[in-house]
Amino acid sequence: MKLTRLASTRPASRLLTPQTISSLRTYHHSRRLMAVNGQANGAAHKAGGVRTNLVPFANRLKEGRALAQDVWSIFNAANLPTDCINLGQGYMNFSPPQWIKDAAGEAMATVVGNHYSHPKGRPRLREAIKNYFSPTFGRELDVETEILVTSGANEGQYSVLTAFLEDGDEVIMFEPFFDQYLPSVVFNGGKPVYVPLHPDRSKSKPTSDDWKIDFEELRRAMNSRTKIIMLNTPHNPVGKVFTREELEKIAALAEEFNLIVMSDEVYDSLVFDGKEHVRFAMLPGMWDRTVTVQSAGKMFAATGWRIGWLIGPAWIIHPTLAATTRIVFCSNSPMQEAVAAGLEEASKRQFIEIQCSEYAERRKIISEGFDKLGMRYTLPEGTYFLLLDISNLKWPDNFPFPPSVEGRGRDFKACWFIAMEIGVSSIPVSEFYCEEHVSIGENYARFAFCKDTDTLRRAVERLQGLSRFI
Amino acid sequence: MKLTRLASTRPASRLLTPQTISSLRTYHHSRRLMAVNGQANGAAHKAGGVRTNLVPFANRLKEGRALAQDVWSIFNAANLPTDCINLGQGYMNFSPPQWIKDAAGEAMATVVGNHYSHPKGRPRLREAIKNYFSPTFGRELDVETEILVTSGANEGQYSVLTAFLEDGDEVIMFEPFFDQYLPSVVFNGGKPVYVPLHPDRSKSKPTSDDWKIDFEELRRAMNSRTKIIMLNTPHNPVGKVFTREELEKIAALAEEFNLIVMSDEVYDSLVFDGKEHVRFAMLPGMWDRTVTVQSAGKMFAATGWRIGWLIGPAWIIHPTLAATTRIVFCSNSPMQEAVAAGLEEASKRQFIEIQCSEYAERRKIISEGFDKLGMRYTLPEGTYFLLLDISNLKWPDNFPFPPSVEGRGRDFKACWFIAMEIGVSSIPVSEFYCEEHVSIGENYARFAFCKDTDTLRRAVERLQGLSRFI
Repeated sequence: MKLTRLASTRPASRLLTPQTISSLRTYHHSRRLMAVNGQANGAAHKAGGVRTNLVPFANRLKEGRALAQDVWSIFNAANLPTDCINLGQGYMNFSPPQWIKDAAGEAMATVVGNHYSHPKGRPRLREAIKNYFSPTFGRELDVETEILVTSGANEGQYSVLTAFLEDGDEVIMFEPFFDQYLPSVVFNGGKPVYVPLHPDRSKSKPTSDDWKIDFEELRRAMNSRTKIIMLNTPHNPVGKVFTREELEKIAALAEEFNLIVMSDEVYDSLVFDGKEHVRFAMLPGMWDRTVTVQSAGKMFAATGWRIGWLIGPAWIIHPTLAATTRIVFCSNSPMQEAVAAGLEEASKRQFIEIQCSEYAERRKIISEGFDKLGMRYTLPEGTYFLLLDISNLKWPDNFPFPPSVEGRGRDFKACWFIAMEIGVSSIPVSEFYCEEHVSIGENYARFAFCKDTDTLRRAVERLQGLSRFI
Repeated sequence: MKLTRLASTRPASRLLTPQTISSLRTYHHSRRLMAVNGQANGAAHKAGGVRTNLVPFANRLKEGRALAQDVWSIFNAANLPTDCINLGQGYMNFSPPQWIKDAAGEAMATVVGNHYSHPKGRPRLREAIKNYFSPTFGRELDVETEILVTSGANEGQYSVLTAFLEDGDEVIMFEPFFDQYLPSVVFNGGKPVYVPLHPDRSKSKPTSDDWKIDFEELRRAMNSRTKIIMLNTPHNPVGKVFTREELEKIAALAEEFNLIVMSDEVYDSLVFDGKEHVRFAMLPGMWDRTVTVQSAGKMFAATGWRIGWLIGPAWIIHPTLAATTRIVFCSNSPMQEAVAAGLEEASKRQFIEIQCSEYAERRKIISEGFDKLGMRYTLPEGTYFLLLDISNLKWPDNFPFPPSVEGRGRDFKACWFIAMEIGVSSIPVSEFYCEEHVSIGENYARFAFCKDTDTLRRAVERLQGLSRFI
């Protein structure tokens, strides 16, 4: 592929560099490798003198899309112009507060702070979780049987599935889904069943509340093999904070079909405009069948600490403890102590309230930027994601796209174009849909606004350059 | 059960306290719960007004012994006398060195040190692993394709199994086996096939080298469904450092049956008496089919940091990366930076050499203690474990044992007795055998000597009290 340059519309600093061109070549190469992998899995053969694939990898990797080239590797910073502003990946470009980090240092100054924790989680952290969250669950949580610390929320939800799924059990996932759900379900023998959220595309200024479940469709997706429903509120990437009425309808179905509800509420500390975050476990009768997933990474801007936790009834937590104990044994100790300190002091420091108002300011910067451009987007009521409607975006016919975005939803090209031409990265939303429903997702690009305001203002300024392409 | 006291032989401080008695009661209770769980899994029923088991847990938990009451919960410090010296669990009662811990603090002072790492591991750590270990693998390791950082060695080995096992694939495990292997295999659909190491019981002063594989037995255990062989050298709990000749015989079988060899070498920095640790991957042809498991926790006395790594050919690492990415996404960032600093400076500080001589001193303290007692034990050539032969130990007929050790191997009672009567905890070795082979393991108790010398001396002094029972 010859790489042509659109020098007239692209600032010099974002021209294709030799590094970028080399990245594009890497795509070709890895795409070929992927193909080899797919075709030759199981066959011993020589490649560059090295014997490869002496033994086939497990089919679960293919079924779980785990070896496919995913959005994260396609839109990896290393593949984009060096100065591209990263609004793709959902991590902060700021740190957890010093008073929380200090507690990790204090833990490491002790002997026990450097050694194995109990697989349930360190007593101080479980106590802190109990004290902080019991009021939000309307009950005194039991630190021995109802709280389980995990190596990030991700490993927590994975362990629930390990603990409960038998081969062929069905799991309901709302689309767009957090992409880790799919392999987590499939690796544990489950069968994902997709139910899309439907955006109201008639609105000129939609909010995340305009993405709706068709409850007849949801009901039709359920049967006697359905075992778990994966709920995510506030929802990544839509930003939807499910209403009590919606959750009650889900609850009725969970009761009728005797389901476990995995309620992924990792963004529960990021809800805007006075919108109420309804804990699913707080609905009548739902404590008994709900496991709530939470994340210190999201709550304290510490995504690399890998501390999350599960809250639920003993009959869910007990087998899940058995699973996580065998998968990771326990979570890292110093960061558990740090998170405990965070929860212990968050209320008196009004940490969450202040952080939430900061995120509201960030949301304002990016949403006003798109208002100014006249582009439609979904205003999120929670999370730090905003979906830009890219259906009206037009790029030059001769724009050079790498093979990795060819043959994917229109959003893959849009995100690539925006990153290369404008210098702001985002993530195509069709990745979070099954193939059948790609046409819903391909209208959107996800922008993460968990970045400092200066960065967001610079991004917004660059994004005004899109005016030439709509 | 009425708890009688053996006041005449037990120091006052180790009398059964109300707390201990309450612990024993907890056993009864949890044993009942376990039974309920086993029988009633799947049936919704009321217990104490709370609905339990609305949905059954997965059968893999039962098959993988994951819900059974394991040695770790039976011999948990909380169940033993408060002043019991813990030589049961394999973690240190000392810290990693300050210069390594400092690097974690430095990482946390940066933004990126608190956020997601690449699922492969942080570049600095992979580079440090490459520089430190390439010479020991006789090749320049590729940081992109041949090194994978995992959330502890445990999660590393788990991910290999997720990446490669199909339902019904067989996995060879030498007994005694590291107990996490069993659920790791079963959770991923594999079938464990057990091959015991045979101790030479005729020797009065056996070493770990006197535990041998019967290679005819090993060969008979293999067939066309065998996919992986799990090797552990230096071996926990025997302390055996497999000889080159033994490993070559295993290699020949791995080649003949086209197996992946998972070589768990987490104790490779703890080998005594000038014994050679042979890396399995260094045997002719074996790089191509071997994944080596290593552990920062073992190497730097930081078991709670949860950092391990895998080294192997790209065709094994690539699917395993896909698995670990979905299971935990990535490992915690600050501790990766700390471990990187550890590897960067270990050689120039002679850290491993000094640490190893410290462990040799610890081994000397405990082995001389048993020499003085005249009890037989296996002198370990590697690791920080020593197996005491408890076959000649006799405890009073009326000694009160909790139900958790009744009906188990003789070693369960021996370990309970030693903990309660002498005040030193150890771990019964039959736990690490399949039921059929319990009779081999039940002659041994495992003592961990990864403790400071003062603690070990106190333990040895107490253990002299066993003279009354042999």
